[in-house]
Amino acid sequence: MLAQLREYAEAFHDAVPAEIADYIDGGSGAEATLGAASAAWLQWTLLPRVLRDVSTIDTRTTVLGADLAAPLGVAPTGFHTLAHPDGELATAAGAAGALFVVSARATQRYADIAAAAAGPWWAQLYVMRERAVTAGAAQQAAAAGAGALVLTGDTPYVGRKARQGRPVSLASDGTLLNFRDHLPAGADPAVATEQDPAATLDAVRWLTDLTGLPVLVKGVLRADDARACVAAGAAGIVVSNHGGRQLDRAAATATVLPEVAAAVGEQVPVLVDGGIRSGLDVLTALALGATAVLIGRPVLWALATDGAAGVAGVFAALSDDLRHVLGLVGAASPADLDRSMVRRG
Amino acid sequence: MLAQLREYAEAFHDAVPAEIADYIDGGSGAEATLGAASAAWLQWTLLPRVLRDVSTIDTRTTVLGADLAAPLGVAPTGFHTLAHPDGELATAAGAAGALFVVSARATQRYADIAAAAAGPWWAQLYVMRERAVTAGAAQQAAAAGAGALVLTGDTPYVGRKARQGRPVSLASDGTLLNFRDHLPAGADPAVATEQDPAATLDAVRWLTDLTGLPVLVKGVLRADDARACVAAGAAGIVVSNHGGRQLDRAAATATVLPEVAAAVGEQVPVLVDGGIRSGLDVLTALALGATAVLIGRPVLWALATDGAAGVAGVFAALSDDLRHVLGLVGAASPADLDRSMVRRG
Amino acid sequence: MLAQLREYAEAFHDAVPAEIADYIDGGSGAEATLGAASAAWLQWTLLPRVLRDVSTIDTRTTVLGADLAAPLGVAPTGFHTLAHPDGELATAAGAAGALFVVSARATQRYADIAAAAAGPWWAQLYVMRERAVTAGAAQQAAAAGAGALVLTGDTPYVGRKARQGRPVSLASDGTLLNFRDHLPAGADPAVATEQDPAATLDAVRWLTDLTGLPVLVKGVLRADDARACVAAGAAGIVVSNHGGRQLDRAAATATVLPEVAAAVGEQVPVLVDGGIRSGLDVLTALALGATAVLIGRPVLWALATDGAAGVAGVFAALSDDLRHVLGLVGAASPADLDRSMVRRG
Amino acid sequence: MLAQLREYAEAFHDAVPAEIADYIDGGSGAEATLGAASAAWLQWTLLPRVLRDVSTIDTRTTVLGADLAAPLGVAPTGFHTLAHPDGELATAAGAAGALFVVSARATQRYADIAAAAAGPWWAQLYVMRERAVTAGAAQQAAAAGAGALVLTGDTPYVGRKARQGRPVSLASDGTLLNFRDHLPAGADPAVATEQDPAATLDAVRWLTDLTGLPVLVKGVLRADDARACVAAGAAGIVVSNHGGRQLDRAAATATVLPEVAAAVGEQVPVLVDGGIRSGLDVLTALALGATAVLIGRPVLWALATDGAAGVAGVFAALSDDLRHVLGLVGAASPADLDRSMVRRG
Repeated sequence: MLAQLREYAEAFHDAVPAEIADYIDGGSGAEATLGAASAAWLQWTLLPRVLRDVSTIDTRTTVLGADLAAPLGVAPTGFHTLAHPDGELATAAGAAGALFVVSARATQRYADIAAAAAGPWWAQLYVMRERAVTAGAAQQAAAAGAGALVLTGDTPYVGRKARQGRPVSLASDGTLLNFRDHLPAGADPAVATEQDPAATLDAVRWLTDLTGLPVLVKGVLRADDARACVAAGAAGIVVSNHGGRQLDRAAATATVLPEVAAAVGEQVPVLVDGGIRSGLDVLTALALGATAVLIGRPVLWALATDGAAGVAGVFAALSDDLRHVLGLVGAASPADLDRSMVRRG
Repeated sequence: MLAQLREYAEAFHDAVPAEIADYIDGGSGAEATLGAASAAWLQWTLLPRVLRDVSTIDTRTTVLGADLAAPLGVAPTGFHTLAHPDGELATAAGAAGALFVVSARATQRYADIAAAAAGPWWAQLYVMRERAVTAGAAQQAAAAGAGALVLTGDTPYVGRKARQGRPVSLASDGTLLNFRDHLPAGADPAVATEQDPAATLDAVRWLTDLTGLPVLVKGVLRADDARACVAAGAAGIVVSNHGGRQLDRAAATATVLPEVAAAVGEQVPVLVDGGIRSGLDVLTALALGATAVLIGRPVLWALATDGAAGVAGVFAALSDDLRHVLGLVGAASPADLDRSMVRRG
Repeated sequence: MLAQLREYAEAFHDAVPAEIADYIDGGSGAEATLGAASAAWLQWTLLPRVLRDVSTIDTRTTVLGADLAAPLGVAPTGFHTLAHPDGELATAAGAAGALFVVSARATQRYADIAAAAAGPWWAQLYVMRERAVTAGAAQQAAAAGAGALVLTGDTPYVGRKARQGRPVSLASDGTLLNFRDHLPAGADPAVATEQDPAATLDAVRWLTDLTGLPVLVKGVLRADDARACVAAGAAGIVVSNHGGRQLDRAAATATVLPEVAAAVGEQVPVLVDGGIRSGLDVLTALALGATAVLIGRPVLWALATDGAAGVAGVFAALSDDLRHVLGLVGAASPADLDRSMVRRG
Repeated sequence: MLAQLREYAEAFHDAVPAEIADYIDGGSGAEATLGAASAAWLQWTLLPRVLRDVSTIDTRTTVLGADLAAPLGVAPTGFHTLAHPDGELATAAGAAGALFVVSARATQRYADIAAAAAGPWWAQLYVMRERAVTAGAAQQAAAAGAGALVLTGDTPYVGRKARQGRPVSLASDGTLLNFRDHLPAGADPAVATEQDPAATLDAVRWLTDLTGLPVLVKGVLRADDARACVAAGAAGIVVSNHGGRQLDRAAATATVLPEVAAAVGEQVPVLVDGGIRSGLDVLTALALGATAVLIGRPVLWALATDGAAGVAGVFAALSDDLRHVLGLVGAASPADLDRSMVRRG
């Protein structure tokens, strides 16, 4: 892990109550998937090139119209006001130059986040049992300027998490704030805003038609699923196992990314999250076919520790490290990376 | 291991004398096969699907006419009265919705077990040196309502077990109760009721003809053996290494299951046991081609701890966990699982 | 390791001075090859067969005319009088039913060993710088009744051994006793009896012609070498890395045995040594193509501890364990084993 | 690690301040590549041959006109006067029979080193931002008698190193001594003598034309890069990851050497460095296709401990060990080694 990120990881435990730390850092089941995430990037050794002109390193990347200073973004994570009183507004401000994917469980309103955002942002959402709730949130995100929607597909039921022998979950005053605005009259909020386990890939077209925005599917770990998503109208794929918080023993994203990228990477952007903690991890993901990577827990660690400045610190550290290692592998930009740069074992 | 099972595993050591605990938990030789059993399920990582309609999860399964609430059963294990005074009767009552495979070393009579049973049950047996003993037991099991016979094929001699430097074995007043009733006059009980190392696959047809019941062969670890069993008339296969109690260094069932299932799974049901301790293990076995799984030691842990309620607790916990993870992989029923869901490493 | 062998291993350290224990137990270099020897047998998992008639287990084996109760023998190891005052005579007496391969570094005379031997014995030797020395020893072994000669080919120079920071070597009054008798007049004993690094496979034919005995080559780890040996007239091959005492990092015999056996096993017997410590190890070697196995250090442990009775104890324990596990894999004799019984990993 | 080298490694920590020890022993990033270097040689097991005539072992090797007593040399490492007051002069004197590759960061002048050198020496260099600086150094090296130039290609930027939480770097009065002589009037020394990240393979031909010397490229880890270097005029390749000091997670040289050697080994000499600590490591490298190997840190350990005598001690120990293990694998010279001698795992 990059030294700066490690510092945030350590400071974070002083900054938030244990219950919040457990919620953020924990995973489902025996945490096998969680535990394997970062190590899985290390399974790839690097095969750098020598004597290439790397006097200028250019990390600028465009993803579905979003111009980024580096191929980095904030993975959708909930409850930012529990990590820091400024919540998603601080994250939005800090993530300058990076993509901010706002969680369905954001605790501040899209319009306020948009106003605070220093760069492009997208909205992550679920298909809720009450479709009107999702439709309303999606339309409001679009109206507020979201550049795309990210439909999470791996959560028909919420994964079971426990730490130190007790179940871990969180609630907040702001839970599903952007969805609850659209509850139909008389609907039971608890039921209506629950993820609908009957949701299918049809939701991709529905959301696209509803908002005119590109819709990515998040949670994809299989090449055949990625192809099915694209066939269903997905404008992009986010390779993710939900930070090890849904299906335990799910494959590491570092392992399956190349298969997904090989399947659909020429048609749509492929993003990835899961245990990315250094410029070397980012470079590895890019060489394996990712268009950009999303950072989850480190953003929350830094947000809790130092607000917007912390979030900015995470992206500054990762960008800087990425530029350095791009140079060392002989790549002047992510476009110079390819599959031959990484090898298993 | 699922939390509830772990609790039984721990409580069990307080509930029974060390000698019984060693007998139940121990394995043969250096316990290499025993020790590898559970870990072998973890060698398979999962590749879930996203956005499938999993609003209804149906785990019902029928195996050779036995209707089960979930593809779960009690593996044949001996001496239940040593674990709990209610013995096999408690197990039968607790295993509601699951299949109960009654051991040849059951310490209660088939008729009593049948009366206590809340669902289907089968009888496991050996070919004894005195064939009349096996024939009598098989016929009595059939008469009492056993749905099938399970012929254990991996025990021509009993595996050598030792813990803490001393041999481990058990005897009980009820040893081979259902067999001793059929001792011919003048036979030496010790010899007559010993497993016959001369037994061959011919016994499958003999037992089928004798009882009209389907006969499964248990202890199969090879595709060629599975095909030979089916050719010899076996109605099903139980992939098993006898809980690591017979041949040490025998392959893990989690490793060989897919080969056996590929060989005969389209013709006969393939069951499996060995180190299955969570819904994820069950799901993995099903994805690898098992029709149902059998649970050994955890049933005894729970039986010793809490009688029939404990046994019921094991199956409730496993069923519930299985339903949850079926949802998370995008499968509405075991039929939605396939080999592509699991991958080695 | 089989319990009885472990007991000898432990008792041995009380029975001999540390310097002798280090000499016997040590290996060359960093002891990588030594340390990997036993574990390499465990890399093979077993795939037993069910319901075979194993009521009679027959382990009798004939190797180049030597009739053995089981496919077991004493690997050539030196200086038995340093382990026990009765030396090779005790080993010969104890190894009843097993093959005794007498080391070039035996400390007693061939004729005396032959008189004490309870079964067949062979003589291991090196080509010394002074050929007359080797010729004399070979002819004397033949005259004393050796059934074959075992020419060790992996020792052009003696491997460098160190333990606890100091070099390990041994000398004894009886060093090269059977060779020194044949020193030409005026020869420098130290030079004349040194292994000749110029020796080649031509020595096989030379020794065969000289004695009329079959000559095996010991130390072979490659299929091409095994073929070259047979082409040069070798009557058999001993797959060995000299107990990890010569080339450190040499391949484990458990790893290369199947390749050597596949190359020449249909033409000549293939023996193997190296870390064999249980009936399961023996069975694995046989399934991989060995005709018989040789036991090194355990014989010395038992000899030091309990003389001839100890040596007999080693072979009794291994034979008994081999019979047991043959039954458990469904093999009535070594001939029922085949390559399909073992699988890597 | 060979015992003699280990002794130098330990004594070295008493001989130099912690800051210098950290600089010499440290690596970049998380030191993954550094840590894997030596272990990677151990991934190769050896398959020796028996009964070859190895009575005469000849390790003499010629590399691009340099006659060496054994295929060994000093890898380019900087700042020898910080390790020992006699600096590169002592190294040159001690490395008799071995090749001395003088670092660009040498702290003594080429002419003085040449005068002290007991054998052939080459000059390692970088393309600096100010080309005149590199040109001047190269020409001066040629004039002083360097037999070849080694152009390091893996350092467009200097790898980031940290130990115990603080950055590690060194400066010395003699930094880039042989380059600073050639600074154009008015040039900023700090900028002019920095490695130029714009350098490309064109520099190979430039340096060749400038000096008439053969130019090797150092830092190559890929077969395609090696071919590109040779096509660009390189007279040889040094497989290296810069001692784990540049790109962390770069492949181990022991892993990629066979690929590079297969690609260009028939056209040009292939040298290798990285974690070589024993004759077995050297032998493995030669069997994998290396023409010679370079030794880095052990030379500095020995230099710091015992000056020229220490350096001589390193090469004496490695040469002697190499001769011994050549004999044990049945090779009378490096030419008798081939790819079949080593196998992964």
